[in-house]
Amino acid sequence: MAKLKVVLAYSGGLDTSIILKWLQTEYDAEVVTFTADLGQGEEVEPARRKAELLGVKPENIFIEDVQEVFVRDFVFPMFRANTVYEGQYLLGTSIARPLIAKRQIEIARQVGADAVCHGATGKGNDQVRFELGYYALEPDIRVIAPWREWEFASREQLIDFAEKNQIPIAKDKRGESPFSIDANLLHSSSEGKVLEDPSVEAPEYVHQRTISPEDAPDTPTEITIDFERGDPVAIDGVALSPAALLTKLNELGRDNGIGRLDLVENRFVGMKSRGVYETPGGTILLAAHRGIESITLDGGAMHLKDSIMPRYASLIYNGFWFAPEREMLQALIDKSQEMVSGQVRMKLYKGNATVIGRDSAYSLYDEDLVTFEEGSGSYDQRDAAGFIRLNALRLRIAAQRAKKVAR
Amino acid sequence: MAKLKVVLAYSGGLDTSIILKWLQTEYDAEVVTFTADLGQGEEVEPARRKAELLGVKPENIFIEDVQEVFVRDFVFPMFRANTVYEGQYLLGTSIARPLIAKRQIEIARQVGADAVCHGATGKGNDQVRFELGYYALEPDIRVIAPWREWEFASREQLIDFAEKNQIPIAKDKRGESPFSIDANLLHSSSEGKVLEDPSVEAPEYVHQRTISPEDAPDTPTEITIDFERGDPVAIDGVALSPAALLTKLNELGRDNGIGRLDLVENRFVGMKSRGVYETPGGTILLAAHRGIESITLDGGAMHLKDSIMPRYASLIYNGFWFAPEREMLQALIDKSQEMVSGQVRMKLYKGNATVIGRDSAYSLYDEDLVTFEEGSGSYDQRDAAGFIRLNALRLRIAAQRAKKVAR
Amino acid sequence: MAKLKVVLAYSGGLDTSIILKWLQTEYDAEVVTFTADLGQGEEVEPARRKAELLGVKPENIFIEDVQEVFVRDFVFPMFRANTVYEGQYLLGTSIARPLIAKRQIEIARQVGADAVCHGATGKGNDQVRFELGYYALEPDIRVIAPWREWEFASREQLIDFAEKNQIPIAKDKRGESPFSIDANLLHSSSEGKVLEDPSVEAPEYVHQRTISPEDAPDTPTEITIDFERGDPVAIDGVALSPAALLTKLNELGRDNGIGRLDLVENRFVGMKSRGVYETPGGTILLAAHRGIESITLDGGAMHLKDSIMPRYASLIYNGFWFAPEREMLQALIDKSQEMVSGQVRMKLYKGNATVIGRDSAYSLYDEDLVTFEEGSGSYDQRDAAGFIRLNALRLRIAAQRAKKVAR
Amino acid sequence: MAKLKVVLAYSGGLDTSIILKWLQTEYDAEVVTFTADLGQGEEVEPARRKAELLGVKPENIFIEDVQEVFVRDFVFPMFRANTVYEGQYLLGTSIARPLIAKRQIEIARQVGADAVCHGATGKGNDQVRFELGYYALEPDIRVIAPWREWEFASREQLIDFAEKNQIPIAKDKRGESPFSIDANLLHSSSEGKVLEDPSVEAPEYVHQRTISPEDAPDTPTEITIDFERGDPVAIDGVALSPAALLTKLNELGRDNGIGRLDLVENRFVGMKSRGVYETPGGTILLAAHRGIESITLDGGAMHLKDSIMPRYASLIYNGFWFAPEREMLQALIDKSQEMVSGQVRMKLYKGNATVIGRDSAYSLYDEDLVTFEEGSGSYDQRDAAGFIRLNALRLRIAAQRAKKVAR
Repeated sequence: MAKLKVVLAYSGGLDTSIILKWLQTEYDAEVVTFTADLGQGEEVEPARRKAELLGVKPENIFIEDVQEVFVRDFVFPMFRANTVYEGQYLLGTSIARPLIAKRQIEIARQVGADAVCHGATGKGNDQVRFELGYYALEPDIRVIAPWREWEFASREQLIDFAEKNQIPIAKDKRGESPFSIDANLLHSSSEGKVLEDPSVEAPEYVHQRTISPEDAPDTPTEITIDFERGDPVAIDGVALSPAALLTKLNELGRDNGIGRLDLVENRFVGMKSRGVYETPGGTILLAAHRGIESITLDGGAMHLKDSIMPRYASLIYNGFWFAPEREMLQALIDKSQEMVSGQVRMKLYKGNATVIGRDSAYSLYDEDLVTFEEGSGSYDQRDAAGFIRLNALRLRIAAQRAKKVAR
Repeated sequence: MAKLKVVLAYSGGLDTSIILKWLQTEYDAEVVTFTADLGQGEEVEPARRKAELLGVKPENIFIEDVQEVFVRDFVFPMFRANTVYEGQYLLGTSIARPLIAKRQIEIARQVGADAVCHGATGKGNDQVRFELGYYALEPDIRVIAPWREWEFASREQLIDFAEKNQIPIAKDKRGESPFSIDANLLHSSSEGKVLEDPSVEAPEYVHQRTISPEDAPDTPTEITIDFERGDPVAIDGVALSPAALLTKLNELGRDNGIGRLDLVENRFVGMKSRGVYETPGGTILLAAHRGIESITLDGGAMHLKDSIMPRYASLIYNGFWFAPEREMLQALIDKSQEMVSGQVRMKLYKGNATVIGRDSAYSLYDEDLVTFEEGSGSYDQRDAAGFIRLNALRLRIAAQRAKKVAR
Repeated sequence: MAKLKVVLAYSGGLDTSIILKWLQTEYDAEVVTFTADLGQGEEVEPARRKAELLGVKPENIFIEDVQEVFVRDFVFPMFRANTVYEGQYLLGTSIARPLIAKRQIEIARQVGADAVCHGATGKGNDQVRFELGYYALEPDIRVIAPWREWEFASREQLIDFAEKNQIPIAKDKRGESPFSIDANLLHSSSEGKVLEDPSVEAPEYVHQRTISPEDAPDTPTEITIDFERGDPVAIDGVALSPAALLTKLNELGRDNGIGRLDLVENRFVGMKSRGVYETPGGTILLAAHRGIESITLDGGAMHLKDSIMPRYASLIYNGFWFAPEREMLQALIDKSQEMVSGQVRMKLYKGNATVIGRDSAYSLYDEDLVTFEEGSGSYDQRDAAGFIRLNALRLRIAAQRAKKVAR
Repeated sequence: MAKLKVVLAYSGGLDTSIILKWLQTEYDAEVVTFTADLGQGEEVEPARRKAELLGVKPENIFIEDVQEVFVRDFVFPMFRANTVYEGQYLLGTSIARPLIAKRQIEIARQVGADAVCHGATGKGNDQVRFELGYYALEPDIRVIAPWREWEFASREQLIDFAEKNQIPIAKDKRGESPFSIDANLLHSSSEGKVLEDPSVEAPEYVHQRTISPEDAPDTPTEITIDFERGDPVAIDGVALSPAALLTKLNELGRDNGIGRLDLVENRFVGMKSRGVYETPGGTILLAAHRGIESITLDGGAMHLKDSIMPRYASLIYNGFWFAPEREMLQALIDKSQEMVSGQVRMKLYKGNATVIGRDSAYSLYDEDLVTFEEGSGSYDQRDAAGFIRLNALRLRIAAQRAKKVAR
């Protein structure tokens, strides 16, 4: 019988190395590794040597820089909707999972693998996001989720397994990390351990990607962001690729202490959890995108977008990126962005990302209309009387009823 | 025939004094003035002498401090929904109008008046908010809206009328103010003139209620806010009445440069306008309320609230406070707040109002559940497999169809 | 060690009798039976003797007529929202489950039971509805779901077990029924077997509760239904209790071939299934309730209700009756019904339930307003011009932009 | 100075003939007539001679059969959403107005006209629909709405004007019609006069397009409708153009007494009105479309569609067909229909249009999955346990809180 062939989402770190070995020993599997450079800020090439050391065949090692795809096809479409989960969270982790799942499935097809495997735990959202992605793209794929399957009952047992199997263990990994991290070009998240008590302030050292507002410069930085059809395309007049642009915004955000969020959120699996998120560039981008929409997007269109946004955000948070209803909402959102083009001026200062000016050849803002002085042909103040009276009509009828009934 | 008796929303300022006189001359009306102290930061008693000077009978002068009613019955109910219009605006002007309209109608009943009158212009939202309020409470009331009716075609003609009628004109009013202001305990708004070009940064001098983040202290301020059933009740352990509490938050916000917003928004009457809003206390309160909800409000409840919020915000913005659908939404919102009680710790620093801790006897956050370690009886990681597989089922069936169809 | 004590939802039929015995043998459990008369149209008292025969102690047998509670506290609240799932289904099965779950939990507390048990299969929605109900009311209750647990792999093995355990088997149960039924005072549902191919018409014999429209009388029946605060209270002027009223409507519906639905629906567990539903009284009630709302409910209120209805329906369908968001929506819905009182006249004829007249002391319909003739003081046709022009304003601005951009 | 040139929506009937003459006399206008054959069931060619008689130049007379455009670009897109207003109304009048408005504007451009004119009254929705259409397409167009402008205070004065101007008056028009009618290929509506009391049954004679269910044949008619991407394309296997197909469905509906609706609805202008609608083909089509969606549309997609439908319906009802948010919703809806193809079998019988079978190569219904018997590889009943437990988790935590708090 042919060996089971498994495509593993492999970071090169200790945990996924243990999984790699566990697949080889427990399943007698031929492991194919997929390591994505999502802009997490760590080299990905070392993963190659680690995989080789663990016996993965060179042709079974896939290492890819997917930053441009990530930003262009996942991050930017999401930002077109001004997406935040539970009013605040910019979905930095959620939006990366579908991309990884998609590439794993594509590689599985390419190499003829039977199964895919990820390193997410059994309590979190990421397992759902990975696996909904897998199933949506390849319905009969076999999914292996080690954290839900294996018998290791403690971190110690994992380390023992690693030692027994000659998996190199960084010194600081022997004792446990005081919190866990996920990172990509959009954000870093920290959770667990020292963050588990939501009444206790997050320690400064959990932050990976931003300096504290208090440590940020005393002078504001001003920038201009250009948008085309809802997506940012240039900073200070310099056209940049999606990933390069987000990288630049990240630097600007980091240096000005922008994008920190300490949040207790509701996981899809039913529990509340506390995370510390840093989304420096994304936080600037959200404010800027709202700024350019404020002058280029029709009011009715904006209100419709705002009303469906929470649902769109939940779909992404819950892992339904490839679900038909997410795609339907995307069609609606993208339709709205056709004229969301122009320039936003922003001030960055100690945690604040503030829109201070917006300009566009597609502007719907009409100074003539809004001015206190008379003189605009397109607005007759007397129209407001009729507008109000007809809007009031049903309220008046109801008030008349209330009077009649009270008698 | 009896004289027309009109209840005027009277600030004591130049514009409403002109209206007062105009009602007397144009309509030969007996004017009843209502001056509300909404916490706008100006003395209201001077309005009495001004009204008297303009010939209003003492028994026709109503001056009231409505700050507690304003905060308790209007501001706090609105904040229970984390209400923002178009993603950002805290609705400081919108929420005050229904209260004024309601008192005008009550006074009209008390004094037997036939009509009510306000000083809002014919291009803005406030005329709608006033008048929808009037009509919803007293369906057959006569509404006089001078700005839509009179023949004055310029500011100059207004001033001429004032002079001719011995209405005192403050020196600085002769030339026009560079922008117009509305203020109450929740916020100050500035708009018009120097703010009319949305590509140009708002000058520092338009700000009334906050110092600039750059001028705020270099050291953060930490405070604790106590909530009961969704409303704040104490700061740093000191119980405060609604208005006193908001006043205190305003001071804290002002001193830390918190709550400025420069926004281009969509008016109900169909045009875009640009406003600069300062909501120092409200900005802190919004963040704090989200903080206490994050541990005390069920996820499903929160998502429902978030999904109806934009509609609730539009209703308030558009002046439908007394509409049945606003009251229905309020019933939904209030129902959700029954256990939103506890304490939020916040850091205020140069424009940032950040939740750094939350605690509650009603917390739904369960450290045992969320911990990476095993040991919680209520969560079995294996359950996640079934959860995912059933959530994936429809996606898999669709993917199978896609394959079949592609063949 | 004390015996496990289990409260079983017991119909007295073969399947739940097998479960009863299985609990006794497999779990060595002391079984407490709960048999509810929900108006399913079968005697419930025989369940007592059957339970006794199977060794259940008399004090452990609970048989209750819950029809009034069912209609008053579950059916009517749901109908206040004009609730239909996926545009059509009146949720007859879904709405009964929470009541049964609630009573099981209450009995479990009363008798000191450790567990609850139901007879729903592992593929359907009912298991979810029962168990979400149990957990929402008693979070640490033990739930036993035999169909997901036991080893019987076929109907035959079940029958064998029944025979071996002296469970009486009705003759016609030996061979399998050609479809499965659920019934209560609101509806009967049929699914499975002969209905599994959705391209094939449902045979006439699956219908339990209605005659075919073709067999219904050739003369229409006219009735009047009185409503108070959203609930029906009388038929043809005769006040009736909730259950008696629904019973009467069921008779009227049955006799006129009203309330059949053949539907392919989406189950919460992810698959599509086909059911044939008969909701004779409910179908009349839905039309009548819409009728009384049409004259007594404000337009804004109605549109809000309509927009949240699909979510409310899904919550009930999915088993979230006791979830906070269902209760929030109920608060909103109930708030809207305060003046939904009056009388609706209906014609029942061969499958059609048609509103032919509505009348109410709380009517918002104003003949004066709507007439083509002039003469109503409250509507000035000229107001419409301003109303339209301001509603058009943003469209005009967008059209002006389109022209400018096209140049 | 050049004469005012006006494009009038001209039916050829008495009212629009009066308007034509009034435009010539009151405005001294050069009138251009546009007469559309929307399938209203009256000849349109006679309008040519009438216009000529009233002095309209031949080159200013536009008569067009727009039935195919109407059904293909307006009716079918709307039906993709299963659109009903206030739960019941199929929007037959609303959906025709944008098409007429669009053609008027196009003709105005072609002939160089300055203004457009319609014959809708000042109390209804149609004036809004026409004028929002005009303004959205040609922002600076001049709009003439005679019913809101002229001085005629009664029907009698209108008739006098007609007589004085040699406008031919059909005998039965001298006395007033007992109700007013609008018709097109989708529906006929009747309102006013004899229908103004909503407590009184609509007389049989108001119905234009359907026989009564009681007069319909005693034997059912069965038909098959084929759909492609959400639109019907064939009846009983015969491919038909959009208008031909709807015409055929209308005949089938008429003959079987299908599609009558007696409704009190909420107009956009704020009042309630009562209408009798007949939408024979549309009623069949709605049921059939739901039927084909039930097996081909994913559950999540369907629920999203259902949740936005009321908003989409209101937009159409209120006249916002050309608004950006309608177009955004259309993008969402159209996206969902990509695989809504297949065949629906229906039974038509005395007012009932019942789906009795559906079949599709794109079906998502899986008999294997849903069967009571084991044997489907893709569903493991044990998965349901985990699915339920994680869905219950937040409910359990809330219940634990309730217990703790109660102590």
